[in-house]
Amino acid sequence: GTERQRLVDNSGEWYFESQHAVSGEELLSAKFESLDYDTCENSLWAAEDQSRTVWDLRRIELCRWLVHLLIGVVTGAIAFFIDVCIEQLAKVKYRYMKSMLDRCIFHDCLIYALLFCLTVFGEPVAAGSGIPQIKCFLNGIQVPRVVRLRTLVCKVLGVLFSVVGGLAVGKEGPMIHSGSVVGAGLSQGRAASFKFDLGIFEYFRTDAEKRDFVSGGAAAGVAAAFGAPVGGVLFALEEGASFWNQGLTWRIFFSSMTSSFTLAFLLGFYRGIPNDLSNPGLISFGKFDKLDYDLLHLAIFACMGVVGGLSGALFNTLNEHLTKFRHRYVTSKLGQLTEAVLVASITAVTSFVLIYTVRSCQPLGSDQMEYPVQMYCPDGKFSSMAALLFQTPEAAVRSLLHDPVGTYSVTGLIAFCLPYLLIATWTYGVMVPSGLFIPSLLIGAAWGRGVGIGLNLLFPTHFTDPGKFALIGAAAQLGGIVRMTISLSVILIEATGNVLFGLPIMVVLMVAKWVGDYFGTGIYDMHIELASVPLLPWEPPSRSAAVSAQAVMSSPVTCLYRQERVSRIVEVMQQYGNSKLWVRACIVDGCRSPVV
Amino acid sequence: GTERQRLVDNSGEWYFESQHAVSGEELLSAKFESLDYDTCENSLWAAEDQSRTVWDLRRIELCRWLVHLLIGVVTGAIAFFIDVCIEQLAKVKYRYMKSMLDRCIFHDCLIYALLFCLTVFGEPVAAGSGIPQIKCFLNGIQVPRVVRLRTLVCKVLGVLFSVVGGLAVGKEGPMIHSGSVVGAGLSQGRAASFKFDLGIFEYFRTDAEKRDFVSGGAAAGVAAAFGAPVGGVLFALEEGASFWNQGLTWRIFFSSMTSSFTLAFLLGFYRGIPNDLSNPGLISFGKFDKLDYDLLHLAIFACMGVVGGLSGALFNTLNEHLTKFRHRYVTSKLGQLTEAVLVASITAVTSFVLIYTVRSCQPLGSDQMEYPVQMYCPDGKFSSMAALLFQTPEAAVRSLLHDPVGTYSVTGLIAFCLPYLLIATWTYGVMVPSGLFIPSLLIGAAWGRGVGIGLNLLFPTHFTDPGKFALIGAAAQLGGIVRMTISLSVILIEATGNVLFGLPIMVVLMVAKWVGDYFGTGIYDMHIELASVPLLPWEPPSRSAAVSAQAVMSSPVTCLYRQERVSRIVEVMQQYGNSKLWVRACIVDGCRSPVV
Repeated sequence: GTERQRLVDNSGEWYFESQHAVSGEELLSAKFESLDYDTCENSLWAAEDQSRTVWDLRRIELCRWLVHLLIGVVTGAIAFFIDVCIEQLAKVKYRYMKSMLDRCIFHDCLIYALLFCLTVFGEPVAAGSGIPQIKCFLNGIQVPRVVRLRTLVCKVLGVLFSVVGGLAVGKEGPMIHSGSVVGAGLSQGRAASFKFDLGIFEYFRTDAEKRDFVSGGAAAGVAAAFGAPVGGVLFALEEGASFWNQGLTWRIFFSSMTSSFTLAFLLGFYRGIPNDLSNPGLISFGKFDKLDYDLLHLAIFACMGVVGGLSGALFNTLNEHLTKFRHRYVTSKLGQLTEAVLVASITAVTSFVLIYTVRSCQPLGSDQMEYPVQMYCPDGKFSSMAALLFQTPEAAVRSLLHDPVGTYSVTGLIAFCLPYLLIATWTYGVMVPSGLFIPSLLIGAAWGRGVGIGLNLLFPTHFTDPGKFALIGAAAQLGGIVRMTISLSVILIEATGNVLFGLPIMVVLMVAKWVGDYFGTGIYDMHIELASVPLLPWEPPSRSAAVSAQAVMSSPVTCLYRQERVSRIVEVMQQYGNSKLWVRACIVDGCRSPVV
Repeated sequence: GTERQRLVDNSGEWYFESQHAVSGEELLSAKFESLDYDTCENSLWAAEDQSRTVWDLRRIELCRWLVHLLIGVVTGAIAFFIDVCIEQLAKVKYRYMKSMLDRCIFHDCLIYALLFCLTVFGEPVAAGSGIPQIKCFLNGIQVPRVVRLRTLVCKVLGVLFSVVGGLAVGKEGPMIHSGSVVGAGLSQGRAASFKFDLGIFEYFRTDAEKRDFVSGGAAAGVAAAFGAPVGGVLFALEEGASFWNQGLTWRIFFSSMTSSFTLAFLLGFYRGIPNDLSNPGLISFGKFDKLDYDLLHLAIFACMGVVGGLSGALFNTLNEHLTKFRHRYVTSKLGQLTEAVLVASITAVTSFVLIYTVRSCQPLGSDQMEYPVQMYCPDGKFSSMAALLFQTPEAAVRSLLHDPVGTYSVTGLIAFCLPYLLIATWTYGVMVPSGLFIPSLLIGAAWGRGVGIGLNLLFPTHFTDPGKFALIGAAAQLGGIVRMTISLSVILIEATGNVLFGLPIMVVLMVAKWVGDYFGTGIYDMHIELASVPLLPWEPPSRSAAVSAQAVMSSPVTCLYRQERVSRIVEVMQQYGNSKLWVRACIVDGCRSPVV
């Protein structure tokens, strides 16, 4: 009996156990292969290893650094490209809207909707934020085509149009995915999508090396998206942390820093202030003059963390049901296209209704508003609701954080929050490249500012700065949805640019995670589960130590010998290849493939 | 032949190989045991694991969080205690000095020298910064008595007197060690030094659990020392990163945050501003109004990084030779005491000579100076050199970063730098608790400010703020000495309180590390090597894959059977216990101890 559990036997045979799913339900999808992150130490490898001179090793090390430098530069340049394009397209859109007034909303969105739907036909894996896929890749799951050049192109073009089209999406998540593709592509020196091969860096063409560069790329993506190089490194570690290595961390950090620097440098150049390197991210929360807090504030922030956790759990639950529905009924390309167009239209209609219903007219003159929209307001005034909805979402977040007291009313903010939450829930998972960070921040900043205004109404002498509460609300909402911990804290601290406000941000993220985790996992883990990806959790389930492999293995065990005819291997593969759950372990010459 | 390498054999025997040192040189010390961080999964363990209910598991998890909370609170409180004591003692010292003028210097230092030498007799392991020891502990080396309560007491009292006594030491490194002891002590619910046992948390009495709490404590220590909760977590990960686990990171973060918060809260209370939580560390670099930089600055900073790397390598080389000398000749307690007194006296004499030689008299009125010392200056003026030498080193660093242009002269700074570097080199390793961070920062800030002043003299319209260069110099010098990377960047960014200046800090640290690494390892690794600790490096040496275990094993191999008489085990242990190098591997019931 107990002998069955032993995977190593005396004669050095190569066990090969297969298993049909234990339950009727399909638990894990068979379409994912596992990547092999262990060096396969056979005699061929040893011979090659021995043939390398010290100079070869130095050259390889130098190439590694060089590739990490390139990853940073290219990722930064892509971020710059996205940023500038969106800025220019937004300008065009604004001019167009100004001249066409309300009629445009439909036009505008529909045009963009048609454009961004290239994703559906281009490369389905480019949809969404890409973060769950990258997380899987970094943890040893081969997600088909996730780091292909074609995916990158679809992602970048798609995100341009979905952001400018006014969908409830951000460009930050896709930036992380883009960086990862850059990392994979540059390190391999070839692009499978377009069938060219530079024939360089052949040494790096192993799964483990590729993973290292992909994590560098992901970090560079975060660094460019949020101007958070340290946050980028932590993101790569927290999400892809089935490995950890000081040397690698150091190189990832280098990519991350380069990317942030490249973006800041290019943006400075573009804006005519070439020496200004102080704004190194796609999103910046703007400059806060005074972010003081005391114990009372901290207590209120903690309560806001609870709200964020609850609201995040609501978001995730709604999204889970939607995703399940979508998996079942929206499977054809036409269906997916229709859904994308539908989301775009509903977004436009809702915006329109909101602006018409909530007449939040403000006198012009607030210089932070880049595109004041008059819409249904008397001359000399602009609609703050329209500003919230038609600026780029990043600018809207900044408005909520910094606009003077009185720009927004509590009712206006509530009226904005709820529909936007529903739309954002719906949008995440539609077949367009869409980041989740910015919509979450926007929802949170809106209700956070509402809390701040409310407190100020109750205690007129205290709580004079609603922007502070908007920032905390944003952190709470985002934390409640994604449930990242230390990396998110650092990302938000770096984006805020104020270390002293770090403690409240951490407290809020911690509370939001605790509360949210009570109801379920974070949205990325949820999507990984929904995709039936066989991702192993951090720790084995408690008290599983006594469960023997026998309990999940089929009987009789199928064995392959160390020397085996190809026909027999093919036969075994054909017989068990479609089984829903594989448990295999191969030991040959010290090479141990992970259990899938 | 190749069969000899196999550690597992068919009959399940328990191999036990021992090895006398290959070379004549003693490579590794036999006095260090290894900690066992793997769960020993035998049948007893499995039975206990099975007996636990879900509620037991929840209770344990709750206790874990509780202990991490306590670690944070206690570490923060200890930091508060140290800070307040040093402040009060410094006040006493200043009054005394003011009345006794120069005569005092000797008195003062000698009195304190006698006091801090309690370390020598109290607990030798409390000497130094404790960081190498904690690094060893976190990576699986049992350093005797390193996390004992007695060590903590000696450390805290010793650091008080060594800092106030005017030695070239800081209180930050010892704070990290103190935090680690708190982590170990609280989690075990007993103190071996004082023979009491609360009988609680018995579940946590394994090496692996203890390590987790110690890393929490180390993080809490960093958080309290530098007001850098994120830096603390990264420090624990970077230095003790042979493990990495999302759940653990999350708890470490909690300790770290609590500690920072506790310290800020207590300090706020003590200073009569109970709601001010904005200054959460022992050291703060003060508030910078404007830290802008451009590409030219960045290039200059990179050059300063080179200087820091070189000067750090010089520091480390000098310290290495001193340490070797000390290992050989200063071995008795009396010798160590004499050396400590000698260092204190030389420090005092040097200060005295410096102040007398460099008459840098400045008009009174600079309100940043807490204790202006008139010393050899005309009435109404104070000596800026004396201020540099007789303030607490933290205050001296702040002076260099923030004092108005003209307070220090280039010659004065150079005259300060070189002797101070030599004294700091000598002091690190003397038998007193001594942090390295502050002296390094002070040296770097001094030459950095010198560079800033020099540049301003050459280009009067540019480079008007020497404080910026002082900050970069401080980072370069510290980076050149300790060679920490990402954690140090974050610590410095958090201490500066300005995220936007993060990029220059990272660039400088990176350059300093590259340059420094060319000449040797960082000071902590150097001390670990000098202590002959068998710490395994991150990666095996390149091309070592083809070297078989046979090459380092003795012949014939000594075997122990699975069932063995005690007398035989004792016999084997006695025969091979003193061997200089052990290579052992035991496999019993799935429990695999690490190869030492």
